[in-house]
Amino acid sequence: MVTATDMAGEAAQELGSLVRDFGLKEIRPRIRELEEAGEFPRDLYRQMGELGFFGCCFPEQVGGTDAGYQALAAVAEQLAWAYPPLSAAMNLQAATVPLTIANWGAAELVERYVPGLISGTLLGCNAMTEPDGGSDLLGAMRTRAVRDGDHYVITGSKMWITNANVADVAVVYAKTDPELGHRGVSAFVVPTGTPGFATSRVPCRVLGKLMPTNEVILSEVRVPAANLLGEEGEGFKVAMSAMDYGRLSVAARSVGLAQACLDASVEYANQREAFGQRIGSFQMVKKQIADMACEVSAARALVQDAAARYDEGVIPTRESSIAKYYAGEVCNRAAQATAEIFGGYAFSDELPISTYLNYAKLWQTGEGSANIQAVLIADDALGWKSMDRHRRPSKPGARA
Amino acid sequence: MVTATDMAGEAAQELGSLVRDFGLKEIRPRIRELEEAGEFPRDLYRQMGELGFFGCCFPEQVGGTDAGYQALAAVAEQLAWAYPPLSAAMNLQAATVPLTIANWGAAELVERYVPGLISGTLLGCNAMTEPDGGSDLLGAMRTRAVRDGDHYVITGSKMWITNANVADVAVVYAKTDPELGHRGVSAFVVPTGTPGFATSRVPCRVLGKLMPTNEVILSEVRVPAANLLGEEGEGFKVAMSAMDYGRLSVAARSVGLAQACLDASVEYANQREAFGQRIGSFQMVKKQIADMACEVSAARALVQDAAARYDEGVIPTRESSIAKYYAGEVCNRAAQATAEIFGGYAFSDELPISTYLNYAKLWQTGEGSANIQAVLIADDALGWKSMDRHRRPSKPGARA
Amino acid sequence: MVTATDMAGEAAQELGSLVRDFGLKEIRPRIRELEEAGEFPRDLYRQMGELGFFGCCFPEQVGGTDAGYQALAAVAEQLAWAYPPLSAAMNLQAATVPLTIANWGAAELVERYVPGLISGTLLGCNAMTEPDGGSDLLGAMRTRAVRDGDHYVITGSKMWITNANVADVAVVYAKTDPELGHRGVSAFVVPTGTPGFATSRVPCRVLGKLMPTNEVILSEVRVPAANLLGEEGEGFKVAMSAMDYGRLSVAARSVGLAQACLDASVEYANQREAFGQRIGSFQMVKKQIADMACEVSAARALVQDAAARYDEGVIPTRESSIAKYYAGEVCNRAAQATAEIFGGYAFSDELPISTYLNYAKLWQTGEGSANIQAVLIADDALGWKSMDRHRRPSKPGARA
Amino acid sequence: MVTATDMAGEAAQELGSLVRDFGLKEIRPRIRELEEAGEFPRDLYRQMGELGFFGCCFPEQVGGTDAGYQALAAVAEQLAWAYPPLSAAMNLQAATVPLTIANWGAAELVERYVPGLISGTLLGCNAMTEPDGGSDLLGAMRTRAVRDGDHYVITGSKMWITNANVADVAVVYAKTDPELGHRGVSAFVVPTGTPGFATSRVPCRVLGKLMPTNEVILSEVRVPAANLLGEEGEGFKVAMSAMDYGRLSVAARSVGLAQACLDASVEYANQREAFGQRIGSFQMVKKQIADMACEVSAARALVQDAAARYDEGVIPTRESSIAKYYAGEVCNRAAQATAEIFGGYAFSDELPISTYLNYAKLWQTGEGSANIQAVLIADDALGWKSMDRHRRPSKPGARA
Ligand SMILES: Cc1cc2nc3c(=O)[nH]c(=O)nc-3n(C[C@H](O)[C@H](O)[C@H](O)COP(=O)(O)OP(=O)(O)OC[C@H]3O[C@@H](n4cnc5c(N)ncnc54)[C@H](O)[C@@H]3O)c2cc1C
Ligand SMILES: Cc1cc2nc3c(=O)[nH]c(=O)nc-3n(C[C@H](O)[C@H](O)[C@H](O)COP(=O)(O)OP(=O)(O)OC[C@H]3O[C@@H](n4cnc5c(N)ncnc54)[C@H](O)[C@@H]3O)c2cc1C
Ligand SMILES: Cc1cc2nc3c(=O)[nH]c(=O)nc-3n(C[C@H](O)[C@H](O)[C@H](O)COP(=O)(O)OP(=O)(O)OC[C@H]3O[C@@H](n4cnc5c(N)ncnc54)[C@H](O)[C@@H]3O)c2cc1C
Ligand SMILES: Cc1cc2nc3c(=O)[nH]c(=O)nc-3n(C[C@H](O)[C@H](O)[C@H](O)COP(=O)(O)OP(=O)(O)OC[C@H]3O[C@@H](n4cnc5c(N)ncnc54)[C@H](O)[C@@H]3O)c2cc1C
Repeated sequence: MVTATDMAGEAAQELGSLVRDFGLKEIRPRIRELEEAGEFPRDLYRQMGELGFFGCCFPEQVGGTDAGYQALAAVAEQLAWAYPPLSAAMNLQAATVPLTIANWGAAELVERYVPGLISGTLLGCNAMTEPDGGSDLLGAMRTRAVRDGDHYVITGSKMWITNANVADVAVVYAKTDPELGHRGVSAFVVPTGTPGFATSRVPCRVLGKLMPTNEVILSEVRVPAANLLGEEGEGFKVAMSAMDYGRLSVAARSVGLAQACLDASVEYANQREAFGQRIGSFQMVKKQIADMACEVSAARALVQDAAARYDEGVIPTRESSIAKYYAGEVCNRAAQATAEIFGGYAFSDELPISTYLNYAKLWQTGEGSANIQAVLIADDALGWKSMDRHRRPSKPGARA
Repeated sequence: MVTATDMAGEAAQELGSLVRDFGLKEIRPRIRELEEAGEFPRDLYRQMGELGFFGCCFPEQVGGTDAGYQALAAVAEQLAWAYPPLSAAMNLQAATVPLTIANWGAAELVERYVPGLISGTLLGCNAMTEPDGGSDLLGAMRTRAVRDGDHYVITGSKMWITNANVADVAVVYAKTDPELGHRGVSAFVVPTGTPGFATSRVPCRVLGKLMPTNEVILSEVRVPAANLLGEEGEGFKVAMSAMDYGRLSVAARSVGLAQACLDASVEYANQREAFGQRIGSFQMVKKQIADMACEVSAARALVQDAAARYDEGVIPTRESSIAKYYAGEVCNRAAQATAEIFGGYAFSDELPISTYLNYAKLWQTGEGSANIQAVLIADDALGWKSMDRHRRPSKPGARA
Repeated sequence: MVTATDMAGEAAQELGSLVRDFGLKEIRPRIRELEEAGEFPRDLYRQMGELGFFGCCFPEQVGGTDAGYQALAAVAEQLAWAYPPLSAAMNLQAATVPLTIANWGAAELVERYVPGLISGTLLGCNAMTEPDGGSDLLGAMRTRAVRDGDHYVITGSKMWITNANVADVAVVYAKTDPELGHRGVSAFVVPTGTPGFATSRVPCRVLGKLMPTNEVILSEVRVPAANLLGEEGEGFKVAMSAMDYGRLSVAARSVGLAQACLDASVEYANQREAFGQRIGSFQMVKKQIADMACEVSAARALVQDAAARYDEGVIPTRESSIAKYYAGEVCNRAAQATAEIFGGYAFSDELPISTYLNYAKLWQTGEGSANIQAVLIADDALGWKSMDRHRRPSKPGARA
Repeated sequence: MVTATDMAGEAAQELGSLVRDFGLKEIRPRIRELEEAGEFPRDLYRQMGELGFFGCCFPEQVGGTDAGYQALAAVAEQLAWAYPPLSAAMNLQAATVPLTIANWGAAELVERYVPGLISGTLLGCNAMTEPDGGSDLLGAMRTRAVRDGDHYVITGSKMWITNANVADVAVVYAKTDPELGHRGVSAFVVPTGTPGFATSRVPCRVLGKLMPTNEVILSEVRVPAANLLGEEGEGFKVAMSAMDYGRLSVAARSVGLAQACLDASVEYANQREAFGQRIGSFQMVKKQIADMACEVSAARALVQDAAARYDEGVIPTRESSIAKYYAGEVCNRAAQATAEIFGGYAFSDELPISTYLNYAKLWQTGEGSANIQAVLIADDALGWKSMDRHRRPSKPGARA
């Protein structure tokens, strides 16, 4: 009997090929033009939404394809392979943001935002990190939400919020009761048009222009209490659950980036010559290619295992954390090696190599830094804090 | 529909647990005593044979269990986990030697040796490497076999032949026609009692006493032509096919060794104290444990993928080579980290840590050194020499 | 007796402090403004020239300070520490370019260009690399120079030529006789105003705007035969000698960059908090800092040893190559670690961290890629090709 | 003016050559024979003592040569190069033990033991570590010394005490007042013939037989109060000062071991052939050799800098700690690479490669584990705990 998980695996492969084709035809040829224009590629987001790239984890009634998490991982991998900056879409349109709304929001919120996000007609952003820190979400959070009748009034600031400047809707975390620690945080859906919601770009030259990141200033932003995700005080749980999905996607993207490095290296090593030979014939280059080939395989195996578990209906915190941590290392090593293989050309804007170099480093930090993952993985291995202690069902719609 | 491969996967897990239990009860408590005695542990070999540890890749008619390659990998992993030196048995009793005879030998040879080897009543050895080198099998081979009527007379020497001093039977490679290159090598089954077959131990202090390695001197050793494996001149093909199986087993053993390191580290980090804390509470130790945990998972995933392909009926040269290369790195890093975590105790004979340290290094070299794997993997990735160009069916009995 | 070399060492330290002060006061506070303006910082070059930063390897009669190579290394280190892109000046104004002219040019050329270059009033560039490759200078060189009476006519193209768009003068390598191999290359001083000399920027987003790199198109550029550096056919020797000086400077710059990483990390680890502690209190961060501290010390020791040998009057090809190779590794590891420590802030244009990340990678490739160094160092260690076989006096003015 | 330190540097080089010669002629040819005999090589110790290998840090009145710390480092490096196990002598006969007695003992003790130790007629051992741990000397110390009239009675046990089974004299640390923390430890000179002093070997197969390590059981061992080193309660200070000297020696030994690896690799890569070429011609092997060559140079530079500072009259805790930590890494990487280059032969007792592999790991732990060094170095770099806070004069005879 082929399990549902197996079937999801095969479907994922097909979808992956589709995304790769799209990447080859619609994305890669346009990268330079898009980067030079520097405009947010809204059309691409919409196109990808229409093609169903963002709907894998959602049932058809909200416009999803129900293809599952292996499919999500496949799309994320291929999109990152095509061009890393665009794969930010995976968390903002296909996982973290819409899943958080779907898992924790009232039916009305789900209807209003989820179909739009996964079809690419609405843009989302996830406003978690603050200037004082991302690793220690709780300790660094200064943003306050104060109940005022059937509204909350949110004041504070967020940092590093990808796509906030173009987004229609934000998921915002704020403290409703700073005394209560974990239980004093709440999560909100905030339409970005709400008065008091302002953004300013954080210039990051090395990341290019297609994944804008922003500071968000919240000045007495007033949202209906119905915009709560979960109950008041459940925000930390909501955030952890959001991360649980984000980690898979960032791990899969890291694999895609590493594969892109390998493919670029193989192509270049086949064509570039020095001392009368293709540079792939030098063993020092071969060693770099062999290492990439092995590590990419290993990282992909871990991501696929984790994704399959999601499809079996649980959140595999341990496996996704391991996959994220490991894939983060791997894509860095691959990007470093690739840059070396390309010599001077690594730095030319005509090629994506320097983008790989910088995004590889970024993804090691985003969605839980390497150190944070290492601590969690070790504490789990040591038997001190099981990563499955909050094991949750992975299907959207069900509250944890 | 559950595929045969899936079923084999589940059976493999069960068998793995059995071997682990055996390791915990019958092997680990006896290590010190056995090492001190320094005798070859014939009884253990027989016991393991009886329990079916060696018969996974063989049909019932020759005494096998037909459990498959995933099962072979599971046994190899667990045996290495229990005590690395004993897992040499996997290639000599369960894979390289009996498979080579089964795949390439006449029915008579198969009957005479295979059941005995996999039941542990006969001991085998694989005499491939020569003093002039192991990586370049062909270039380094000086051993000659000269046809003399319906016999061959073999003269030469072999180096590093594990268990040769205790073995009943050896698979020996020799040149039948030194002019013919690849086509001038032949493979033979040589009963070690044959006059002219002599061994002398190569002392290797750091490897302990339970995996004796030997120089083999062949002085006009006369064997019937019927002892040929394959045709005359097919010896190189036979050797490559032998390696194809050996690689899986050594990869699986490397995973077992790495897991043993992780387990030992976790246990020790939970009990050893310094500065008033268990040493697992120091982040530098945590980092080592997290890295091990991730890399062991990754290496195991690669081994299992490769093993599943064997069970699907092909020799996955690429995948097994990647698994071997990667697992070889991983078990070295794990052994290094574990030795650091154990501090001075890493060196005490009461613990297996120094054994891990040295076998990890050995397994990187054995069955194809890291460099050789890297070259093959890179040439494959570059599209220069597909590793599947000799893709062979993996079932025993069928000639390649 | 204090040797001249010792005295040069002390003088170097003083000069180093001066440059560091300059970096702190004149460079660091202006980085953002300069990068945003995107103009070539001619004034800074002139200021540094006036302060004597570029004259270390030159006698007073051409405007130099005769401070020596340890001083050169100290300036290069501190300038890279202040801001990596500006330290490109070291090779173009203080070492490769003016030294090549001084060592190989006619008196007239020396007078015309050297004083201007080292005072920062003239800008130089070094046009060696071509689109087909930098490692294999000879094999990749397509640029031709054809004798025409007492002129040469140069046609071809060069790639990656730093500052070519702003330079007054270029050292250009071209083949005078493609049949003659090493002996068929010649080197020329080419005023950039010469008709036929054109440049076009190679956009490299991740490198910022202060170190412009260019393609140079040479279309029948006519220069007097008196502009030859060395004799016709000595160009390869000239190039090797140019690299001999360039390597020291790039090694020293790598140390400066690594030190800048360490300093930034220490400062940030002292101020950033997470989970109620300064992040420097987490052992994973400590480990990164300890590794940087050790490796920076080690790399600096190698650079200083090499520089001292130059001051003793020989070109220490082995030592400078080792220093370059090692410092290239070290500054990459330091930049990677620093980016991790800074988390998201590594990517902000307000901080130099992403500049460190990208220049570290660049400097591993420039002036002889890591692989090329490794081959040379190994061949020397193996006794196959002594790196001292072309040992040359290091003083300017003397022809090798 | 040549400083005393410079002169000491030159003398050190000469002495180093002498030791290398001795190693080549008297040690290396006898290694196998000595290991097989398994007897402690008392004669070699005496010979080395007579040749002045152990007297570098001592004035002539106690039989020393006053050659200084650079000389000590040179001897330690060369002895480790010759054969790592024998270089344990450096701390027990030439540094830790005699220096501790000389620095902290009464004149009588100095006379009775120092001349004998440095002439190799008496053997010493250093009994610091206990079964519960070496890193946390204080926390792990259970050994008690109780004042009884003008004697102390010592009871407890020590672990890992090198040469204790053959030593004439031990420096033993014990708690005189467990309540007092750092101030409750005292150090004693204990003649090993004293009743109650018993040793039992800790078998460590992988370390060979020439550096025996032992458990020491102290059962009411009675020593005169005059055998105190420092005052009662100064034992922790004494221990820290002992480590200050031990670190330099272990760092220098690590460099010697790494150099031995490099030399062995170069020799083997020049002679071993595969695929028709010397294996040194494969770039993967070249890369390993280049890395070793660079890192050995870097580590030696750090050791020499540290040693020169001792000769200038201060204990450079920071520099010696950095040198120890870094050289510990380097010799491990070198030993790993060398084992790979030697393939199977790495494991043969006829070659010292497996000894290098295991001692490299040991020296990373001994005299302050890598983690402990990393913490100290980082805390110093962070400005949290200056490693120079206890800066002490380095000359023997002077109390700190
Ligand atoms: C381009 C970009 C886009 C981003 N997009 C978003 C977004 O859309 N939404 C959003 O909410 N956030 C976003 N982020 C923020 C990102 O998730 C954070 O950068 C990340 O969580 C790390 O937080 P930090 O940068 O504050 O680092 P810090 O938390 O300040 O960490 C600094 C360093 O300390 C280490 N550290 C911290 N705690 C420990 C510990 N206990 N043990 C050991 N080491 C520790 C970290 O590993 C790191 O090395 C983005 C960041 C970037 C750069
Ligand atoms: C304990 C032990 C047990 C063993 N048991 C057996 C056994 O039972 N039967 C058996 O037949 N053999 C056995 N071997 C031999 C083992 O398989 C060989 O050691 C291995 O194949 C490597 O060969 P080698 O040692 O001759 O190294 P070499 O082939 O001499 O290689 C030396 C070095 O050169 C490198 N090298 C070689 N060629 C290249 C290249 N083209 N490119 C880059 N680098 C290259 C290698 O990677 C290695 O680093 C055993 C070895 C040991 C140590
Ligand atoms: C920003 C920037 C500024 C520069 N400025 C200047 C300048 O001012 N003047 C100038 O002349 N040049 C300049 N360069 C060029 C620089 O020196 C070259 O990039 C460098 O020499 C490497 O050449 P390449 O990029 O052509 O790489 P390639 O030579 O094509 O090498 C590609 C890869 O092949 C490897 N490889 C090549 N041969 C071997 C071998 N035998 N064995 C093993 N591996 C091998 C290399 O290590 C590398 O990994 C600059 C480059 C950049 C990016
Ligand atoms: C062959 C041999 C010879 C020796 N000879 C002598 C001798 O002659 N005299 C003598 O006194 N001793 C001797 N030693 C002991 C040696 O000095 C100790 O092994 C060493 O100090 C480490 O102590 P440990 O083994 O108890 O490890 P532990 O202190 O138990 O450390 C275990 C692990 O915890 C880590 N750790 C501990 N604290 C921290 C922390 N705060 N942060 C991060 N990580 C931490 C360590 O780095 C290590 O990885 C010898 C040891 C050996 C093996």
